[in-house]
Amino acid sequence: MIQTPYLLFLGDAPDQLAAKVAQGIKDWRPEFAIGQFRMNGCKADMGLPDMTLSEALEAGAKTLVIGVANRGGVISPEWRHVLAEALLAGFDLASGLHNLLRDEPELAEIAKAEGRVLHDVRVPSVKYPIANGVKRSGKRCLAVGTDCSVGKMYTALAMDAEMQARGMKATFRATGQTGILITGDGVPLDAVVADFMAGAIEWLTPDNDDDHWDLIEGQGSLFHASYSGVTMALVHGGQPDALILCHEPTRSHMRGLPDYGLPSLEEVRDLSLVLAQRVNPAVQVVGISVNTQHMSEQEAESYLSDVEARMGLPAVDPFRHGAGRLVDALAVLD
Amino acid sequence: MIQTPYLLFLGDAPDQLAAKVAQGIKDWRPEFAIGQFRMNGCKADMGLPDMTLSEALEAGAKTLVIGVANRGGVISPEWRHVLAEALLAGFDLASGLHNLLRDEPELAEIAKAEGRVLHDVRVPSVKYPIANGVKRSGKRCLAVGTDCSVGKMYTALAMDAEMQARGMKATFRATGQTGILITGDGVPLDAVVADFMAGAIEWLTPDNDDDHWDLIEGQGSLFHASYSGVTMALVHGGQPDALILCHEPTRSHMRGLPDYGLPSLEEVRDLSLVLAQRVNPAVQVVGISVNTQHMSEQEAESYLSDVEARMGLPAVDPFRHGAGRLVDALAVLD
Repeated sequence: MIQTPYLLFLGDAPDQLAAKVAQGIKDWRPEFAIGQFRMNGCKADMGLPDMTLSEALEAGAKTLVIGVANRGGVISPEWRHVLAEALLAGFDLASGLHNLLRDEPELAEIAKAEGRVLHDVRVPSVKYPIANGVKRSGKRCLAVGTDCSVGKMYTALAMDAEMQARGMKATFRATGQTGILITGDGVPLDAVVADFMAGAIEWLTPDNDDDHWDLIEGQGSLFHASYSGVTMALVHGGQPDALILCHEPTRSHMRGLPDYGLPSLEEVRDLSLVLAQRVNPAVQVVGISVNTQHMSEQEAESYLSDVEARMGLPAVDPFRHGAGRLVDALAVLD
Repeated sequence: MIQTPYLLFLGDAPDQLAAKVAQGIKDWRPEFAIGQFRMNGCKADMGLPDMTLSEALEAGAKTLVIGVANRGGVISPEWRHVLAEALLAGFDLASGLHNLLRDEPELAEIAKAEGRVLHDVRVPSVKYPIANGVKRSGKRCLAVGTDCSVGKMYTALAMDAEMQARGMKATFRATGQTGILITGDGVPLDAVVADFMAGAIEWLTPDNDDDHWDLIEGQGSLFHASYSGVTMALVHGGQPDALILCHEPTRSHMRGLPDYGLPSLEEVRDLSLVLAQRVNPAVQVVGISVNTQHMSEQEAESYLSDVEARMGLPAVDPFRHGAGRLVDALAVLD
């Protein structure tokens, strides 16, 4: 568990998009985001108070979270002295970057000497079990997509927020770096060793109250030639009661695979159901979450009503319209 | 690549079954197996000449392969002095055990000082790429099973042997520890990090002659809740032209999962085809390999002819009848 609240490190982010980890924390766990730390030339702004390290410490911050990714996912030399200073001042550090904080000799040395924790959320810190497939109590909802990066994390976070607002029992279960930094906990599934993938998801979503929902962050796609094995482990390890299909309609090919078109929503529905029924015969596809960011309001409305009629399921863009109807749809499992 | 030929270390194997790695090498790569090394109390026998370390070295052996697994997969204290002596005498060591040769301080030290190689085939030694899904030249056959340990490796090795005997171009591609020790090369897929599983299989089965077949060792099962993600990566990374369904008819539940029955051959056929078509629309299921070791000759014959009629595909037990008809069946892809 990463200690909260956070000071968000935006570094020298070239634009707002480069700071999408910080944006995610600001959007979904605003109570964790006490302030932002920006260096010269930073073009991102979360609308949070700009703070020095000592101001943030005084305000209660416990961890400096690297909320920015630069090209190649590396820790740039310009950042290094700020990170070292933060450790010395009393912060833990958290990062989802490819090159690890622990592999920076200076940072590792200071952290050890000062008793600070370096959270490299890209690598697992737990020895996960082999999955046993035993039915668990409580309910689970998994977002499955036609492709990578179509809004699966956003959908689960939006449903979690809606369920909290309604006073329902729900927990967002992070399975990727950004999700883990947002919530402070989770499984970095793409970095787990193959044999333990499904077991890691069972571990992440244990027995719970009968009326509790785990909202499991999806990864990859069953139709994505690079990452389908990761998605498969989520379906079998997650033992979902409810599936939400996620889609981005303007994409012309699978992310990173120019030769591969996207599957239809029907294909994703049918394959996901066959696979999920293996671990939970009662599983149902309950709704469709469409990322309409590249469509006009009118295009989006028309597309969503077409999909809704065609599939016989509620189809919404949770960013435009909220996740209320997706949460309503979970009631079919009661 | 592990240097051949081998001296097979049988240690103090309590029975023949404990030495199944050695048996596999003896059965499938007899030219690699120069002799066996047995300690007091060893109950396994490969029918190879018993040799001392120096006799084996003189006969040309390069690597001492641990061909035995004891309970827990550990390196027992009784073995350790033999392994140390072998390193000092001039052998490399190869092992598929869970606890690693490199983690034994004495062995690591001697290997370093003497310039010997410790091959721990359970852990990857290559930085695999992310899969790109691009169509490769040459042909690929993958064995997919109703369960784990139903004879997928045996089937691929038997087909490889048959194809070599016929003068066809073929390569067995190992994806597990035993297969790697048998052939000296391969990918230990269950130990690969999730994001790189499919890429590891693409790496293992690169572009080849149009009339060359890779015979890819299968792992797990698409229907096994613990390991299905590994199997999925084999289907998408392997880009198979031909699928062989593997089955063991007397099993009452999935290996390690007492609550799970086995899927039907039809279910495995249909799901495997849908998934494999994503990366190779021309893929076909060409045959069925049945492990009939727990059936009488008459039961086996009757079962196989029933399956053959039901599925409309050649159904054989390659151990009883050879893999000839499975190899014949590949011709439908020409």
